[in-house]
Amino acid sequence: MAVNKNYIIGIDIGGSKIIAALVKYGKVFHKMKIPTPKNRKEFFSKLKVMIEQLIKKASGQKNIIGIGCGTAGALDLEKGIILKVVKIKMLNGFNIKNWMQKKFGREVKIDNDARCFTRAEYMFGVGRGYKNLIGITLGTGIGGGIIIGGKIFYGSFGSAGEIGHMVNGEIDLEALMTIKTIKDLGFASPLKAYESAKSGNKKAQEVFEKFGRYLGIGIANLVNILDPEAIVIGGGIAGASEFFLPETKKMVKKFVISPKSRKNVKIVVGKLGENAGAIGAAALFLE
Amino acid sequence: MAVNKNYIIGIDIGGSKIIAALVKYGKVFHKMKIPTPKNRKEFFSKLKVMIEQLIKKASGQKNIIGIGCGTAGALDLEKGIILKVVKIKMLNGFNIKNWMQKKFGREVKIDNDARCFTRAEYMFGVGRGYKNLIGITLGTGIGGGIIIGGKIFYGSFGSAGEIGHMVNGEIDLEALMTIKTIKDLGFASPLKAYESAKSGNKKAQEVFEKFGRYLGIGIANLVNILDPEAIVIGGGIAGASEFFLPETKKMVKKFVISPKSRKNVKIVVGKLGENAGAIGAAALFLE
Repeated sequence: MAVNKNYIIGIDIGGSKIIAALVKYGKVFHKMKIPTPKNRKEFFSKLKVMIEQLIKKASGQKNIIGIGCGTAGALDLEKGIILKVVKIKMLNGFNIKNWMQKKFGREVKIDNDARCFTRAEYMFGVGRGYKNLIGITLGTGIGGGIIIGGKIFYGSFGSAGEIGHMVNGEIDLEALMTIKTIKDLGFASPLKAYESAKSGNKKAQEVFEKFGRYLGIGIANLVNILDPEAIVIGGGIAGASEFFLPETKKMVKKFVISPKSRKNVKIVVGKLGENAGAIGAAALFLE
Repeated sequence: MAVNKNYIIGIDIGGSKIIAALVKYGKVFHKMKIPTPKNRKEFFSKLKVMIEQLIKKASGQKNIIGIGCGTAGALDLEKGIILKVVKIKMLNGFNIKNWMQKKFGREVKIDNDARCFTRAEYMFGVGRGYKNLIGITLGTGIGGGIIIGGKIFYGSFGSAGEIGHMVNGEIDLEALMTIKTIKDLGFASPLKAYESAKSGNKKAQEVFEKFGRYLGIGIANLVNILDPEAIVIGGGIAGASEFFLPETKKMVKKFVISPKSRKNVKIVVGKLGENAGAIGAAALFLE
């Protein structure tokens, strides 16, 4: 069936879940999702099964152009090594590109998960048409991707966009969010706090207002540095935007120094939902 | 004298001084320097006299390609308007490009002073050969310029590089530095503190260590976001680098997340000294 050719497998490995999808020009044809296994052996055996099932769905390897894999953390993009990923420690130092290429006999490209999100929203989502754009993922961690002049900007050593590690005072944005939600306010995770806020819990809603302020300061810094046309927000917590985005926008108005940027920069929530990472990983083959 | 052609007038308007120079391919042939007048009328009459004298030095307007003018603050580059400059408030809203074009009959290009510094060090100084580079000026204020892929990055609304306004906690990097030096520790200005540190004053030296730490956090943030090959530091306080740079480098080692970037990023002091801004303003005609 000629129609089934040109599939790409897109994989999004995050701190809390793995999504693998059969993708074609930004559209998901089949999708699988599991919680990220905590155990190394289970991690690789489950990942292998997911990819095998997607190859079967595509009616065989011959219909697959390649495998794009987005993972959290700092990567050596050329070699395909995961250098450091705070939330999935067992992957530190692992060459995921070689592993996949050997297992499945297809070309493999890897990238940071937040850059995959940003690429997806830029090519197929709310980011279409912007020349300079920053994507921010709010999930187990906080990640970022940067589009400059219509292209993903990787930086000189492949790690541009690590905005979750912007330090504010003595701790970074990511840590701030975690500490505020978990320790100070008794929620097990940001995702739990989001669920509580949705069910009307005032304390949880306040957590998100506070989070929105910190996020807004972080975004204001990014706008002061990079002066983009738009910021696209995604990740598991983006759904809670009703609780944090008004505060975020207030901080952006307050701290962006250029009147022109302050007036024009757009802050929007992505439209590809939880599939964005896998779509953007697959889109590594469309660049 | 054919040899005198192709001069460019480069002007650097800073919070504490104005430098105007007759420049040719990055080399200064004649230079003038005055403290920035506090009074609007005096400001423009003195600036006019400086430019007239440089035109005379070039043996007339016919030998001048144009006037490049770097000023602090947020600018409308196309229209030539100074939108907001915190340290020279009387210039807010002023169209400096039109004023100069009318007065001197030569093409005028304007840019942010820190971008001019960065352009100069990139084209003629320590930044030569780097593809991705960030310039930071430490003077009355803190400014920044960004080189991406070998070109100055202006952002979508002309204000990329406003790194002095990175907010850290509740105040920005620029304010932090000023408050620490002036209020907490009794120095009239960062420049006075520098002079004291040079003369052996321990308290002043501690001020710079503290400043170095904040600067290092700011630079670590920039490296996490933009992953450049090098950071070039300039401005009046760069001369005090012996007192602050060791702390800065420690913070960069501590807070840069990517092992590869942490290992490879260079932090260097510019080599063009106080002329960098004027040279980089003139170089607007070489882009």
